[in-house]
Amino acid sequence: MNKEIRTDLALETRESFEEDNVEIKGVEVSEIMRCNNQIKVTTVNIKTKKSASLMKKPVGKYITLEVEDLENSADMESIDKISGVVSEYIRELIPQKDKGKILVVGLGNRDATPDSLGPKTIDRIEITRNFEEIYGNNSWEISSIAPGVMAKTGMESVEIIKGIVEETTPDVVIAIDSLAARSVKRLNSTIQLTDTGINPGSGVGNHRHGLNSESIGCKVIAIGIPTVVDVATIIWDTMDSLIKMFSINKAYMELDESEQYEFIREIASPKMKALYVTPKDIDEDIQRMGIVLAKALNDIWKNRN
Amino acid sequence: MNKEIRTDLALETRESFEEDNVEIKGVEVSEIMRCNNQIKVTTVNIKTKKSASLMKKPVGKYITLEVEDLENSADMESIDKISGVVSEYIRELIPQKDKGKILVVGLGNRDATPDSLGPKTIDRIEITRNFEEIYGNNSWEISSIAPGVMAKTGMESVEIIKGIVEETTPDVVIAIDSLAARSVKRLNSTIQLTDTGINPGSGVGNHRHGLNSESIGCKVIAIGIPTVVDVATIIWDTMDSLIKMFSINKAYMELDESEQYEFIREIASPKMKALYVTPKDIDEDIQRMGIVLAKALNDIWKNRN
Amino acid sequence: MNKEIRTDLALETRESFEEDNVEIKGVEVSEIMRCNNQIKVTTVNIKTKKSASLMKKPVGKYITLEVEDLENSADMESIDKISGVVSEYIRELIPQKDKGKILVVGLGNRDATPDSLGPKTIDRIEITRNFEEIYGNNSWEISSIAPGVMAKTGMESVEIIKGIVEETTPDVVIAIDSLAARSVKRLNSTIQLTDTGINPGSGVGNHRHGLNSESIGCKVIAIGIPTVVDVATIIWDTMDSLIKMFSINKAYMELDESEQYEFIREIASPKMKALYVTPKDIDEDIQRMGIVLAKALNDIWKNRN
Amino acid sequence: MNKEIRTDLALETRESFEEDNVEIKGVEVSEIMRCNNQIKVTTVNIKTKKSASLMKKPVGKYITLEVEDLENSADMESIDKISGVVSEYIRELIPQKDKGKILVVGLGNRDATPDSLGPKTIDRIEITRNFEEIYGNNSWEISSIAPGVMAKTGMESVEIIKGIVEETTPDVVIAIDSLAARSVKRLNSTIQLTDTGINPGSGVGNHRHGLNSESIGCKVIAIGIPTVVDVATIIWDTMDSLIKMFSINKAYMELDESEQYEFIREIASPKMKALYVTPKDIDEDIQRMGIVLAKALNDIWKNRN
Repeated sequence: MNKEIRTDLALETRESFEEDNVEIKGVEVSEIMRCNNQIKVTTVNIKTKKSASLMKKPVGKYITLEVEDLENSADMESIDKISGVVSEYIRELIPQKDKGKILVVGLGNRDATPDSLGPKTIDRIEITRNFEEIYGNNSWEISSIAPGVMAKTGMESVEIIKGIVEETTPDVVIAIDSLAARSVKRLNSTIQLTDTGINPGSGVGNHRHGLNSESIGCKVIAIGIPTVVDVATIIWDTMDSLIKMFSINKAYMELDESEQYEFIREIASPKMKALYVTPKDIDEDIQRMGIVLAKALNDIWKNRN
Repeated sequence: MNKEIRTDLALETRESFEEDNVEIKGVEVSEIMRCNNQIKVTTVNIKTKKSASLMKKPVGKYITLEVEDLENSADMESIDKISGVVSEYIRELIPQKDKGKILVVGLGNRDATPDSLGPKTIDRIEITRNFEEIYGNNSWEISSIAPGVMAKTGMESVEIIKGIVEETTPDVVIAIDSLAARSVKRLNSTIQLTDTGINPGSGVGNHRHGLNSESIGCKVIAIGIPTVVDVATIIWDTMDSLIKMFSINKAYMELDESEQYEFIREIASPKMKALYVTPKDIDEDIQRMGIVLAKALNDIWKNRN
Repeated sequence: MNKEIRTDLALETRESFEEDNVEIKGVEVSEIMRCNNQIKVTTVNIKTKKSASLMKKPVGKYITLEVEDLENSADMESIDKISGVVSEYIRELIPQKDKGKILVVGLGNRDATPDSLGPKTIDRIEITRNFEEIYGNNSWEISSIAPGVMAKTGMESVEIIKGIVEETTPDVVIAIDSLAARSVKRLNSTIQLTDTGINPGSGVGNHRHGLNSESIGCKVIAIGIPTVVDVATIIWDTMDSLIKMFSINKAYMELDESEQYEFIREIASPKMKALYVTPKDIDEDIQRMGIVLAKALNDIWKNRN
Repeated sequence: MNKEIRTDLALETRESFEEDNVEIKGVEVSEIMRCNNQIKVTTVNIKTKKSASLMKKPVGKYITLEVEDLENSADMESIDKISGVVSEYIRELIPQKDKGKILVVGLGNRDATPDSLGPKTIDRIEITRNFEEIYGNNSWEISSIAPGVMAKTGMESVEIIKGIVEETTPDVVIAIDSLAARSVKRLNSTIQLTDTGINPGSGVGNHRHGLNSESIGCKVIAIGIPTVVDVATIIWDTMDSLIKMFSINKAYMELDESEQYEFIREIASPKMKALYVTPKDIDEDIQRMGIVLAKALNDIWKNRN
């Protein structure tokens, strides 16, 4: 039985079946270790509509790189090594081999840190389109856009991208997005590549409409890294551990309240101590609250009230 | 019995005793409604060392403003009204009445949205120190600093502020900080003012050393708004509701897994759906991951590997 | 004779003719003082193709607000007063009176301060499109986008906006942009509103293609404030003053070099001392140079070379 | 005779004497080419008080790296090469060789792009102080701070740094700053290193007080890159060219106005076309103007006035 846990990772969806020893026809899974076992690459290939419906993910290829210590890889050498492997798998998903027109899209909210992976990546992309005098005509033609989020633009990302695609006719769109994972251990350490685009319910910002070949009329490759976990997921996971460990009712309820709290802290992932829970639209709240506090202070020394 | 729930709000600490019908000697609590019941002001006055030890907060005054819809108060009129009330209570805590030297300190990490309240407030403070030619000599002398966080400066905020205080000799420091609350409903809707400064374990960034009159040799007024909740707290709260509702063991365990998950989502605060869980140092992770992805992409069109 | 000085202000183009006592048929000019003479409103109405060709600006209406001390108007009262007047004139240019679909476009480079007026304005716009549940169906439908600059997107702003306009079919586009003025005294103190859109050669970023009803198939109202002056313009202006003051050859050349320099500083606008000259793509340069210096330093303490 | 041109580069001050064929006792100059002639290193050694007074720069060593195409060196290989050479010369100026306590200071205004080199560099510095558990005790102890500018803090940088130095007792301060050059060709292409600190009148932000061993009681190494040119300097330079080319009075004045303007554009440095003139406090102006325009627009769709 499939747990309806919210995750954007096909890998995690697949795992939820495994736990129940279910084999799914039409889903091929293969694993390979790379870079002295530092990177585990899992390819989940959803081949039939039926298996797609079971997996709640479209037919297509999902390549997942689990990188040990991705979030700590600050030195140039590690970055080179990891990005080299990522590059290789992206290339596998792009039909065009030597040249072609690519629009790189950075989804998400630049001002809410966990949702800013897309725009922050876009900032570093090298652009070649409209610079033929520098790059010549025989190479890739690269453009990029960070469309912003609906709360700030009043438009779905897919509306903006569809318009731009029609106007500039790229061969393929590569969309970068922050994802939601089920498991805390995958936060900031897993990279998912897929040729199916971005689909409803995915991402931190919860896109209402998909960004895929049906919606924009152009192949969409999606690259995502989970940066958040759903609150309910974390609670459910902890409950699960509790129940598995012992008959919760009796033992847990006999603890006094601070013992219960400490118990939860221990049961929960050790990574949990480095996490916090925060509202999704925290950036707008912070701006508003900053205005209120600053005004309260300024009024004091201005002797206005 | 006091639950050891992590909170920076004296109000919440006090409430945890109330639930147990405990009266604490040496702690005075008073409440008043302001602005047509839109703002509830609770003053917790910790008067003795013994009660301070019980409350795990220093002797002093804690004024808490619970503002209905603070996070949605975007119009100028609401902002004026709320900041007017805040202003009044800050004034109550400042010993100097008509003039004086104030250093406003914005604690926290400008680049991690939930921890950025301090720096973002500082950006809007009107500065008068060193501008005597504009403001004259007979008014408040205001300076401000956002010291940054230890992960980025290698220095505790208290080291930086103490040095600046010794050099510029303000009469009082006003420190703005993001706080951690116990209850989701207090996120971005409660303002705490205190004349006891910032104390260890407080704040999103978990300051190791206090910023108070003992540590920097100058009165410290702290203003904070909770922007995050501890993950363990949320789990504990949900467990609590579950247990209260029915004998969890029997009923809960008879649910299948997706029913359990849905049950948790319902039990949990309705506000919870607008929350996510994310690592504390998400800003540095995002930067690193953005570099890796951008390099992976740039390498494709540069035909480097 | 028309001086070919680069300016985005129709007002300044008109003035250049006035200096030569030229009257231009088909150009109507009217002036009015508002707000106790704090705001001077000049309307330049270019009515014929012939006069448009002389003015090097399209047929249409150009409303210019010269606001004394716009750059210093920090208090809420001034902001209210000025924005009220601006609001009134924008309304005059919008054909739709009570409701309609508006796309607000923030042109320019968010990361290069003088070119960031558009994106920074967009950040504060209230969006209603796609939020019918909050705002109802009977009001304005507002969306917004900051398309970024070609150096970063590989696309002309007009390509991006045209695509979005086709997809979301607004009635009118309002484009906000940083402008270039001829006169230093107009920097950050003049607001130009026009119903002709943004035209080639305009703006700090020097758009190659116009953003107007011809190019995007939708009425375009442009709002701009000059934030930069062309270097050659400033030199030319100073030379002009020099020549007018005295026979430059004899007197100026008899000065020694430091006297010449001091003389230029005096001749030049007193505002000039608060100006600096900087490259247009300073944001990308700064980023690159920051990387070089940080790497040079980090290598020292890592004992790498 | 020394031209009183404003420059922060000792190299340019020295050059101004050379033009007059003046030899200055007590100033040693040596040149060396590095990296296949891509980097020209000039060392100006001011050895006596008398020569310091003539040069208007303190006694000390000024190492200048002129890097061809520094502003275009985006690839990792170039960055490695250049930062390697910079690293070597910084090391020459640091007395401590294998370990020591260093405070890196990023001077300037993070929000005004040309003045943001210091803070942007600081963002990338690896910090080791207070992280002994990671880095051990036997290495460099690195901390960093971006103190902000006086308009925003109400404090001189030197006040802030002096306080922090007294509290954290570093062996040496390394200060990064944006500089002003005389010559347009040096913008974003020259790196100056000196062991004399930052001195009054230097930098884009025009520090009123020096940041040097006298003022803060600790050795100060300064690293700067010119990002702006003074407006008067540019005019003076152009006038100079005009006068040298021909008897300005007669020929120039016979040109009509648009010919004069075109002439100035041609005479002036070809780099000048990529420059603009903008106010020093452009960041605050932009914020204010953004508020006014956004309010004007929001008022339209809110039917308020």
